[in-house]
Amino acid sequence: MIIQKSTSPRISSFDPENFSFGDTFIDHMFICEYDNEKWGEPRIVPYGPIGFSPAMMGVNYGQACFEGMKAYKDENDDVFLFRPEKNAKRINKSASRLAMPEVPEEIFMKGLQTLIDLDRDWIPKGEGMSLYIRPVIFATEEVLKARISNKYMFAIVATPAKSYYSAPVSVKISDHYSRAANGGVGSAKAAGNYAASFYPTKLANDEGFDQVIWTDDTAHEYFEESGTMNVFVRINDTIYTPKTSEKILDGVTRDSFLKLADKKGIKVIVGDVKVKDVVEAFDNGTLKEVWGVGTAVVTSVFKALGYQDRLLNLPILSETESFALSLKKDLTDIQTNKAEDTFGWRMKVEKNILEEA
Amino acid sequence: MIIQKSTSPRISSFDPENFSFGDTFIDHMFICEYDNEKWGEPRIVPYGPIGFSPAMMGVNYGQACFEGMKAYKDENDDVFLFRPEKNAKRINKSASRLAMPEVPEEIFMKGLQTLIDLDRDWIPKGEGMSLYIRPVIFATEEVLKARISNKYMFAIVATPAKSYYSAPVSVKISDHYSRAANGGVGSAKAAGNYAASFYPTKLANDEGFDQVIWTDDTAHEYFEESGTMNVFVRINDTIYTPKTSEKILDGVTRDSFLKLADKKGIKVIVGDVKVKDVVEAFDNGTLKEVWGVGTAVVTSVFKALGYQDRLLNLPILSETESFALSLKKDLTDIQTNKAEDTFGWRMKVEKNILEEA
Ligand SMILES: Cc1ncc(COP(=O)(O)O)c(C=O)c1O
Ligand SMILES: Cc1ncc(COP(=O)(O)O)c(C=O)c1O
Repeated sequence: MIIQKSTSPRISSFDPENFSFGDTFIDHMFICEYDNEKWGEPRIVPYGPIGFSPAMMGVNYGQACFEGMKAYKDENDDVFLFRPEKNAKRINKSASRLAMPEVPEEIFMKGLQTLIDLDRDWIPKGEGMSLYIRPVIFATEEVLKARISNKYMFAIVATPAKSYYSAPVSVKISDHYSRAANGGVGSAKAAGNYAASFYPTKLANDEGFDQVIWTDDTAHEYFEESGTMNVFVRINDTIYTPKTSEKILDGVTRDSFLKLADKKGIKVIVGDVKVKDVVEAFDNGTLKEVWGVGTAVVTSVFKALGYQDRLLNLPILSETESFALSLKKDLTDIQTNKAEDTFGWRMKVEKNILEEA
Repeated sequence: MIIQKSTSPRISSFDPENFSFGDTFIDHMFICEYDNEKWGEPRIVPYGPIGFSPAMMGVNYGQACFEGMKAYKDENDDVFLFRPEKNAKRINKSASRLAMPEVPEEIFMKGLQTLIDLDRDWIPKGEGMSLYIRPVIFATEEVLKARISNKYMFAIVATPAKSYYSAPVSVKISDHYSRAANGGVGSAKAAGNYAASFYPTKLANDEGFDQVIWTDDTAHEYFEESGTMNVFVRINDTIYTPKTSEKILDGVTRDSFLKLADKKGIKVIVGDVKVKDVVEAFDNGTLKEVWGVGTAVVTSVFKALGYQDRLLNLPILSETESFALSLKKDLTDIQTNKAEDTFGWRMKVEKNILEEA
């Protein structure tokens, strides 16, 4: 690995109490380029621009996929990643579906750990604080032909993330737009899936909703996901979530919630979640909670569901009554090293990896 | 418009008899940036790299769409665009579906004409030769948040295109993968649509097919498109093509074929094209031709259709018997100023636009 440290680091001017999420970047980034059918020398370089022409294939044909993961700092300033091997596997699943080369797991893990160790001072500490990490692979060849690119870049960039209380949101159950096709790329974290969701989300926003619950494109009868999160429904004391498929992203938070619920003795059913059944449960008073899960906010509690012309206002549950919130606490306690890690999910980022390398 | 001419033009080393399509770029490119809710000053600059970090939203979230169009040089070295207003409209239709700002038609047209005029020496002359032009809009903000970008670039780049005889191809009628969802972005020239098609196309290639005929994702009962082209089927002497919808790109070549067929007195039916009906026509000997149409190759004749375990070998028709080939000739004669332009489709690129500007 080649390391080119920043000669003008910005860390001294970083205020962990006051920064903007998403566009405050840590001092360095990790990059590795693919050409001639192989990955080149991994490098850590100062965060910043790289030269691409508007003919870049990643931009023109959307051959690009990414991951979203976090690093957490505990009371003793130790830094932990959460199930990073899941993200390493998933980026390669996404890459394969988009006919892109897989990134060897060692390159992913070594790059990730070295970068996070080097810029560990950028990780804010305290309740809900973290570093949001973005691994991304994209086609870099500059050719005006709609075909598989021969050149790629794998990069990791990161931004400090704030503790933010996520207020309960209203979501619209989609009855026209969709996120995924049968035989499409819904199970991949493909760049194009996100752009496709912006306009329908904007329309829902205009109607007063915060997010869209995506349903099957054929007849809008089944829940798929919510916004950029997996979705859970609680009817009486049983929780339901759609099974993963080629249309649904296999979320790390979803999987962790399933394991934590099971450990807690909550009954979980993974399978079809019918819009009709959810509405029926609302009508007969058995619908207790609906929520989304994902790395960014961990849990987003829904206060209302928009279904056709109706607005289904959900009960407001206390932190002890709510499965969504108690599972969220179980999860974040493990992530931030406040609870025993019985599943072996935390991975400590060792210090001074660079000097050993 | 700001013009920054190349100080080291490559045109003198360009050999119109021997160049590589797609990665030979003309000396200049057109760019215009969007920020603060408005488009800035349009510019023509030397073709080359621009600095973007791996956090660029166009790459991460696929907020990017493009056009593909051509300029043709006639015997007298006059240069013509073909129905460019269609591409100007379509890029904005695509942009809207991806929650991107529209490019004002004047910026599109003026940029296009000025660039093509300036680099007109790059347009190769002769049978089938042209300049392939790529307008593209992409999100340039560098933020790790899955939301609509606030910054964009509209660019036009171009590459000389060769006369290439396109040999008849074998295509596979898709029975699992799909290109578009109901309520999705299939009718947009969205970057992500192309990446999504690469892997299924590669699988079809591995089975010996050149392209995929995309069918509806629900039950694979209806033809949608073929590869990156619209599709036509001829049964007896009637031609059929799917009607445009939110799943099908409204192709300029398709529209032109429909108008030319009509003029020729060929019976055309625009509506559902059922896989079952095509196979049945093959079996009873009435299936005469199946072909794809698009700007790149104008017409791609299919020699065989792969359907489930069968290979349907299509008849080989002469240039006079074939509707595909006679319509192709009608169209290319208009494009290259060899035939009267009764529809008003050609747009001449005036000389020295720049000096007047
Ligand atoms: C479409 C989509 N669904 C679900 C998720 C949740 O996945 P994870 O829990 O791995 O963050 C994400 C990413 O956050 C996503 O982008
Ligand atoms: C998906 C798709 N369908 C059809 C076409 C044909 O459109 P046009 O005739 O405007 O080139 C294209 C572009 O070439 C395309 O990308």
